[in-house]
Amino acid sequence: MVSPSIYGALARPTLGHLDPEFVRMMEEVKVMLRQVFQTQNDMTFPISGTGSAGMEFCCANLIEPGDEVIIGVNGVFGTRMCDVAERCGAKVTKVEATWGRIIEPQQIAEALQKVSKPKFVAIVHAETSTGALTPLEEISRLTHDAGALFLVDAVTSLGGCPVRVDAWGIDAIYSGTQKCLSCPPGLSPVSLSANALQAARTRKTKVQSWYLDVNLLSSYWGQERVYHHTAPINMNYALHEALRLVLIEGLEARFERHQSMHHALRDGLSALGLEIVSQAGHQLWQLNAVGVPAGIDEAGLRKRLLVDFGIEVGAGLGPLKGKIIRVGLMGETASRGNVDRFLAALRTCLGK
Amino acid sequence: MVSPSIYGALARPTLGHLDPEFVRMMEEVKVMLRQVFQTQNDMTFPISGTGSAGMEFCCANLIEPGDEVIIGVNGVFGTRMCDVAERCGAKVTKVEATWGRIIEPQQIAEALQKVSKPKFVAIVHAETSTGALTPLEEISRLTHDAGALFLVDAVTSLGGCPVRVDAWGIDAIYSGTQKCLSCPPGLSPVSLSANALQAARTRKTKVQSWYLDVNLLSSYWGQERVYHHTAPINMNYALHEALRLVLIEGLEARFERHQSMHHALRDGLSALGLEIVSQAGHQLWQLNAVGVPAGIDEAGLRKRLLVDFGIEVGAGLGPLKGKIIRVGLMGETASRGNVDRFLAALRTCLGK
Repeated sequence: MVSPSIYGALARPTLGHLDPEFVRMMEEVKVMLRQVFQTQNDMTFPISGTGSAGMEFCCANLIEPGDEVIIGVNGVFGTRMCDVAERCGAKVTKVEATWGRIIEPQQIAEALQKVSKPKFVAIVHAETSTGALTPLEEISRLTHDAGALFLVDAVTSLGGCPVRVDAWGIDAIYSGTQKCLSCPPGLSPVSLSANALQAARTRKTKVQSWYLDVNLLSSYWGQERVYHHTAPINMNYALHEALRLVLIEGLEARFERHQSMHHALRDGLSALGLEIVSQAGHQLWQLNAVGVPAGIDEAGLRKRLLVDFGIEVGAGLGPLKGKIIRVGLMGETASRGNVDRFLAALRTCLGK
Repeated sequence: MVSPSIYGALARPTLGHLDPEFVRMMEEVKVMLRQVFQTQNDMTFPISGTGSAGMEFCCANLIEPGDEVIIGVNGVFGTRMCDVAERCGAKVTKVEATWGRIIEPQQIAEALQKVSKPKFVAIVHAETSTGALTPLEEISRLTHDAGALFLVDAVTSLGGCPVRVDAWGIDAIYSGTQKCLSCPPGLSPVSLSANALQAARTRKTKVQSWYLDVNLLSSYWGQERVYHHTAPINMNYALHEALRLVLIEGLEARFERHQSMHHALRDGLSALGLEIVSQAGHQLWQLNAVGVPAGIDEAGLRKRLLVDFGIEVGAGLGPLKGKIIRVGLMGETASRGNVDRFLAALRTCLGK
């Protein structure tokens, strides 16, 4: 769900991408994004593409051909990042966990002993495909002790649960507008630490993507305002408004809301004899992997929820296909009314 | 300028990217894009980024490391394409013309004699930086005779003057939403011929960009509807409405409108003692490079037009900086009222 005022922002008259009014708005987007990412990083701005473009931005700028990287894989998005990184010329060491479980610091420590000079260690903070939230602080410490950069996928976590870029020593991070920022999809907020930016600035080879080259983008999003590409103007209006709403609510209050809606859902599911199947103690608040009871047709259940009740839930992916449905409670959607509406619909569908 | 109904479309409620309603709309976008591109190409759809992402899409999918390509360079966008192609691993042969002039078929013929096995020849159809429109048919014939693919930048031409993909034998083409389609920026419509698609499908190496890999994108935009990335939903609503408006007006009527507004502007400028400086006989209708008279401060003129009259015109770029202003008459903006308003403002600014 998207707030009405964000739809209003989307429909505001399109300005030129170098118009002084738009440039002023870009500054405000950067300032607000820094607050939401909890960072002082100067290089904090939205990439002109959806979340996967942010993933590619981080990989393309940091990786030079032949670089070694370590990537945690416990779902779709870690798997995807390995593919993206390899296309950038990286030698990838995968650290795998069963889908639905987190990546343990000990696993990263072991990988760091095997890989001589890793460029970065990457973790998907909130695995949207499984509902598991991997804690980052200990992994960050291990990564920096090994002299590597720390890269984080925060597509689903940003705005829904704590993401402390500076406090947790995150060097490169990307997100998406359409998850807990509750904005339509179309942009990927990113942030790079001084060390990550330095790595991109001192590369021996050009960044393989012109569109995503931070050395060029920084001249447009920085003080120079040199034309690079034409930014998606109206999507930036929408992000501006979405960030404003996040900050008006307050980060801590917003996180607390996501947490309490998760608990309300979990308790309601429990009363129906259902449970959230991702690893206990590490369950995402904003994306709930609900186990489908034996004998229930999962695709039929999702279709009925959509057609009869106007509620879209996600399918299980990969090894979880047919075994779970994924119930998002992100941003505007994380409300008591929606939890109750979903539980009532589910009760009807299950004939309980 | 963007039509009010397009703003209305932008603000429609966001659907899921695999929602049956959205999927049906995607089909209509493809059907309408084929009509606007004047092609039967199955692989005709919008890339989830702005025009430069379309350029990178074409280069990244067609080029394998070491491939030779020939690129016409007569302005900013030909120059940019050389950079993009080199980052994809191409050996680039530039065919250059003075900024403001077209690329001549004879120049391409000469380049084709020097380059043994070119993967493609690329031309910027309408050079937005200079206002020159390079004719494509003869160059297409030469390109195909040499066994190469023909790649065209139609960012500014599509929807404002004839772009006949099939009749002109164009194998790969990209455009932008924010020029003559008169939609906000955010998507890049592309089309690939069967031969271009075959080249992408039979590559020996993976496409270096995961986000732009047509082999993955075709599963989402094709019949399978396999999740790839999350499409910018609301921007697709806007493009859908923009294409509908183009087709309701009719391509030929729309081209004629752009042509007659160009003539009205040219005549009005002439009465002020000003002229359009791009190559005679090849001047774009939708982007007019107006020579700045000696003694006039070009930046001051643009600023006064913006601040006092609410009219944004473009600066000259590269060798044309300070020498021209670029007056767009694209899509909705190409109206008699706007031409008159601009001429009256210009007359005041010049003290005539």
